[in-house]
Amino acid sequence: MTLNPADTAFRDRLSAVLPDDVFRPVEPRYLEEPRGRYAGQSALLALPRNTGEVATLIREAGEAGVGVVPYGGGTGLVGGQIAQDGPARLILSLERMNKVRDVYPDENVIVVEAGVILADVQAAADAVDRLFPLSLAAEGTARIGGNLATNAGGTGVLRYGNARDLCLGLEAVLPDGQIWNGLTRLRKNNTGYDLRHLLIGAEGTLGVITAAALKLFAKPPRRGTALLAVENPRAALDLLSLARSQLGEMVSAFELMHRQGFEFLTEALPDVRQPFETPPEWTVLIDVGLSADLDPATSLEKLFEAAMEAGLVQDGLVAQNQQQANEFWYIREMLPEANRRIGSISSHDISIPLGALPDFIAQGNAAIADIGAFRINCFGHVGDGNLHYNVFPMPGKSRSDHENARHAIKRAVHDLVDQMGGSISAEHGIGRTKVDDLERYGDPAKLSAMRAIKAALDPKGIMNPGAVLREA
Amino acid sequence: MTLNPADTAFRDRLSAVLPDDVFRPVEPRYLEEPRGRYAGQSALLALPRNTGEVATLIREAGEAGVGVVPYGGGTGLVGGQIAQDGPARLILSLERMNKVRDVYPDENVIVVEAGVILADVQAAADAVDRLFPLSLAAEGTARIGGNLATNAGGTGVLRYGNARDLCLGLEAVLPDGQIWNGLTRLRKNNTGYDLRHLLIGAEGTLGVITAAALKLFAKPPRRGTALLAVENPRAALDLLSLARSQLGEMVSAFELMHRQGFEFLTEALPDVRQPFETPPEWTVLIDVGLSADLDPATSLEKLFEAAMEAGLVQDGLVAQNQQQANEFWYIREMLPEANRRIGSISSHDISIPLGALPDFIAQGNAAIADIGAFRINCFGHVGDGNLHYNVFPMPGKSRSDHENARHAIKRAVHDLVDQMGGSISAEHGIGRTKVDDLERYGDPAKLSAMRAIKAALDPKGIMNPGAVLREA
Repeated sequence: MTLNPADTAFRDRLSAVLPDDVFRPVEPRYLEEPRGRYAGQSALLALPRNTGEVATLIREAGEAGVGVVPYGGGTGLVGGQIAQDGPARLILSLERMNKVRDVYPDENVIVVEAGVILADVQAAADAVDRLFPLSLAAEGTARIGGNLATNAGGTGVLRYGNARDLCLGLEAVLPDGQIWNGLTRLRKNNTGYDLRHLLIGAEGTLGVITAAALKLFAKPPRRGTALLAVENPRAALDLLSLARSQLGEMVSAFELMHRQGFEFLTEALPDVRQPFETPPEWTVLIDVGLSADLDPATSLEKLFEAAMEAGLVQDGLVAQNQQQANEFWYIREMLPEANRRIGSISSHDISIPLGALPDFIAQGNAAIADIGAFRINCFGHVGDGNLHYNVFPMPGKSRSDHENARHAIKRAVHDLVDQMGGSISAEHGIGRTKVDDLERYGDPAKLSAMRAIKAALDPKGIMNPGAVLREA
Repeated sequence: MTLNPADTAFRDRLSAVLPDDVFRPVEPRYLEEPRGRYAGQSALLALPRNTGEVATLIREAGEAGVGVVPYGGGTGLVGGQIAQDGPARLILSLERMNKVRDVYPDENVIVVEAGVILADVQAAADAVDRLFPLSLAAEGTARIGGNLATNAGGTGVLRYGNARDLCLGLEAVLPDGQIWNGLTRLRKNNTGYDLRHLLIGAEGTLGVITAAALKLFAKPPRRGTALLAVENPRAALDLLSLARSQLGEMVSAFELMHRQGFEFLTEALPDVRQPFETPPEWTVLIDVGLSADLDPATSLEKLFEAAMEAGLVQDGLVAQNQQQANEFWYIREMLPEANRRIGSISSHDISIPLGALPDFIAQGNAAIADIGAFRINCFGHVGDGNLHYNVFPMPGKSRSDHENARHAIKRAVHDLVDQMGGSISAEHGIGRTKVDDLERYGDPAKLSAMRAIKAALDPKGIMNPGAVLREA
């Protein structure tokens, strides 16, 4: 199927049915993305103000056979939001649909439009003494519609789940321009196929999410944080089991960091205060959110002692106050920035069955060493089996010195992930970057079902063409 | 599309490719269901022993244009498992695929075949000191594949979610006979459309689930139970908020029971020991699973006192030991049996946004009173907004005296549910009973998307024909 360009004739067609101020010139930011790996082409930009306008735009695009690229906060890391290939696209930005429609504290529900910035969803929850637990580095810019379309992860997944687990209902415009009103606040609703979960994670290829009903949670009355030094990833997993046997679901986050990350901080961001004089080989950052009757420092010290006794932990620091907790988290949050400054050759957002994770790290490091001399910064949400396994040049070299090795590195990492039953995209999605990988590693039955669903719901292929699936 | 019968020619065709002992005569139990409202017709019964045999059966059925009705434990309450209409079907029972394939205690994962009985999944988890929290009345008979196909609910939803929330990965045979190997143990995996969530809740109309990777949980070290008397449903919801502010996710269950239920127990099951001398208008059964540092009785008494002070609770009993806790739960578990003996005229498995629940009960009761004099037993998983709102004859009358009123009662209840943004099927599904209701109350855009998906994945319409969607 060949799509038509979003040209002046198409613009004229839209002008006949929509007010003029829905359209704006395309600023460069709509054509760029955070890693600088894509540059979009000329396109038409629409900024609808309500669901009706979104439906009109999609319906007109369908009739004209014009491709539509939905655009949230532009923070995606796999190029899903970039109108790169083929004829000029209609970029459909949800940024004006940024209202919190309703908050239901007694129901633990918030209803928001797709263009609300993630941090604003968190703030609206906080204003009624509730927690919206989706949390990730880009939360000040990312918009909730994009978070849902990509099923975003982040640091709260261990306790609260991925974005899809936080969503009760959706309103969306389907590729034929129909508005699906699925904005229920229900916890139980078994009435046919779950379109919500089909649109979540489809990265805008099956429709545009325009609003969502999201779960809120009681704020854990007391919070505690600790940094614990472990000898190896196996010990980190045993520590996680121990923590859960003591504290159950109150374990909120469990992040693993390799020493390399601390060394990158020293190298690239020397002002960041480091907690250990000599960084341990591996460090676990653990966060707990407790009921009012439990003291965080006491609970974490009890865990620390039990872990020392079991030989799992060599050293550790329990935050004595919120400021210290923030300092611990600041280190974790600065790792991506340090990585960016060092400049990775190849980055991998992968997940591995928990039990295979230590083997993966050992075998992955060996496979990279076979290719050449590199530095590996391995860190991530290890409680979820999600690693950011990133490969960097040795000191004195830069990523541009290793252009030739990039493909071999990526292939070696992804082949190993695949062998071990892992995922080549844990939380970032497929976008445009990983379409080839999905074809290579994806289950054939699943891929053919995906193509059948895409063809059934979007027969003209107008929705985010070239993302997730190659254009038919 | 007209399907062909599973006749002797089809049986001969299957015999050419499958061993003889895959087939057995159809015992009556495969053609009946718990409420006695359906009786299936003659059919062919296959009991495959592995996924390959399931794939062969589906492929052959597709080529011959024969309808396939997947069969788990036969405990569904909406006729989804009954081969009732049209030409003779192939009943595909998963009961021989009843192996626990693997248990990964450190990963909190269990991998089971679809035919494992739910109670056996629970027992396998228990054997490694873990909890599989899906729990429902039929757990001794229901099989996990059916629980997943119908997205079963039950008493653990408040804390642990519905069946879909407990599933990490699936293996399934798609309608074209392809085996989808999606049996991942990953917590994060963003690689294309979520087929898992599409098959879960599709009630066998988009394929047959053959195995699942399921989440396990740390067992809460300490458990507590209380019965608390509240004046009305609003007070029950306020009590839930209070309980969550004190105990967060450690609130495991929160069930509401109307006095009518206790009276039915007295009438139909007089041997059941009742806790209150005079049953209160409304009773809440609350269950908490706590960390080792918290004493259940103390925590619940603290909640009790705070609720008394806030005027939410009038009376209450905190279980002092496990035996007493079991007695409290026994009452809740006997309610469906008492209902069965009294004989409901019309039963409704509905959910309502929590905030609208008190209004629903008031308006529902008024609407029923407009139709005639009836007794209403309203009870359910109120923490999830899920009510079993069942209408019974007055003493001295029987359900057969009210055949004419049944339709009006159901319509009145479902219309009100719909007006209030609720669901006409909270946890039982659509099956064959509620196909008309789904057409009446379902969102048109959703229904058309469902039909498009069904046609795309199952173009011949062989999978569970007539369930969820009317045959095309």
